[in-house]
Amino acid sequence: MFYRTNEPHGLKHNPLNALVIPRPIGWISSMDAEGRLNLAPYSFFNAVAYVPPQVMFAATGLQPPEGRLKDTVANIEATGEFVVNLATWDLREAMNITSVQAPRDIDEFALAGLTPAPSRTVNVPYVQESPVHFECRHLRTIDLLSAGPESPNKMVLGEILGIRIDDSVIKDGLVRYDRLRPIGRLGYMDYVRVSDVFSIKRPGWPLKRG
Amino acid sequence: MFYRTNEPHGLKHNPLNALVIPRPIGWISSMDAEGRLNLAPYSFFNAVAYVPPQVMFAATGLQPPEGRLKDTVANIEATGEFVVNLATWDLREAMNITSVQAPRDIDEFALAGLTPAPSRTVNVPYVQESPVHFECRHLRTIDLLSAGPESPNKMVLGEILGIRIDDSVIKDGLVRYDRLRPIGRLGYMDYVRVSDVFSIKRPGWPLKRG
Repeated sequence: MFYRTNEPHGLKHNPLNALVIPRPIGWISSMDAEGRLNLAPYSFFNAVAYVPPQVMFAATGLQPPEGRLKDTVANIEATGEFVVNLATWDLREAMNITSVQAPRDIDEFALAGLTPAPSRTVNVPYVQESPVHFECRHLRTIDLLSAGPESPNKMVLGEILGIRIDDSVIKDGLVRYDRLRPIGRLGYMDYVRVSDVFSIKRPGWPLKRG
Repeated sequence: MFYRTNEPHGLKHNPLNALVIPRPIGWISSMDAEGRLNLAPYSFFNAVAYVPPQVMFAATGLQPPEGRLKDTVANIEATGEFVVNLATWDLREAMNITSVQAPRDIDEFALAGLTPAPSRTVNVPYVQESPVHFECRHLRTIDLLSAGPESPNKMVLGEILGIRIDDSVIKDGLVRYDRLRPIGRLGYMDYVRVSDVFSIKRPGWPLKRG
C-alpha cells in the first residue's frame, strides 16, 4: 500500500510510530521555576552528536486535561536544564505511570514512587533507580512544522554536561546490555526488550568481497 | 561512575551510543544534482512529529577518505528531497555495505546489489527490497553545536509526503513486527532484532491503583 500523508491511510491507527522502530526512550526529568518536579518519557528522542555530546527530543500536540504542550518543554525553557534518565525493563511500570497526562502540579517522581537524587552539573534531579543519566543544558527549542495552533510540534536540543553510569552495567570498559536491560518503544502499546543482540563488522574501503 | 563530558571518560570506547539505545535506523537514499545516487544508514534518526509527519537525522564529523561531511546532507540540500527506507534483518548485510566510507562517486545501491525503484512524490528512488519507505521533502538543516570546523554536526529535518508499506507486513490494519523484522542500532558493532516484544497499557488520569 502507498498513501500520501495529506490523505487518509485507511489503517486502524496512524502507522508512523509502528514503522520508525525501535525508538530509544528519553525519560526526562525537569523542574519549573518554583522547583516543582516533572518526569515523563519521550520516544521521539535520540542522540544527535558526539562532540560535544548532544540529544534531542520532540513534544507533539496539546495534552489533556489542560490542553497545553507537555510541561517538560516549558520547564526546560524556564530553567535551562534537564536530565535524561534511562528506561529499563525493571523500571517499565514506573516509567509507564509517569506517562500519564496529569495536571501540571503533579510530581511524577512521587506518583511513581521514584527517588529524586541530586545531579552534579545541573539543579534538576535524576531518577536514582535508573542506572544511567545524562545531565543536560538547554541549547534551543525549534518550532517544527505544524498544522496550526491546535497542534504545536516542538523539538528541544540539549548538550550533555555529565554522564553517570552505574558501575554494575560496565564490564571490561564496555557497557553490557544484558546488565543494563534497556527497553525501546514500538508502535501502539508495544515495547521491545534489548535481548536479541547481534554484531556486524563495519566494512572498510575498498570492500573485500568474500 | 560519573564523568563530565569535557573530561576523559576512561572507558574503552565513548559510551554514548551504547547508552542511547535501541536506535531506529534511517536508511537514507538521496541524489546529487547530476542524478548520482547515494544510500547510507543513520541511527541518529527518529520521527519528530505526527501532523504533519516529520523525521530528523543527524550527520556528525568529517568522513574519510575525502574529509567531508556525509554526501547525504549535501545531496538533500542540492535537490530538496530524500527517502527513508527501513532496515530489516533480511537486509542487514546490504545495509552494512552501504555504511562504507566510500568516495563520493560510488553508488551504494549498485555496491550492495540493491534495486532503486521510482518514488511517487519525489525524484529520489527507494530501495525496492525494503518493505517500507518514506518519501520526504527537505525542511531545513540545523547546525548543531560543534567543537570547530574539524567536527561539524548537522541535523536534517524533513516532512514525509508519502509512505509505502508492503502489504505483507500489515494484518488487520496493524503493522506486524514479526513480519517486518526491523533491526535497531546499539553501541559498538551491535544491533538488536525486534523480537522480544511486550505491551503495557498507558494509564488514564486519575490513576487506578491495583
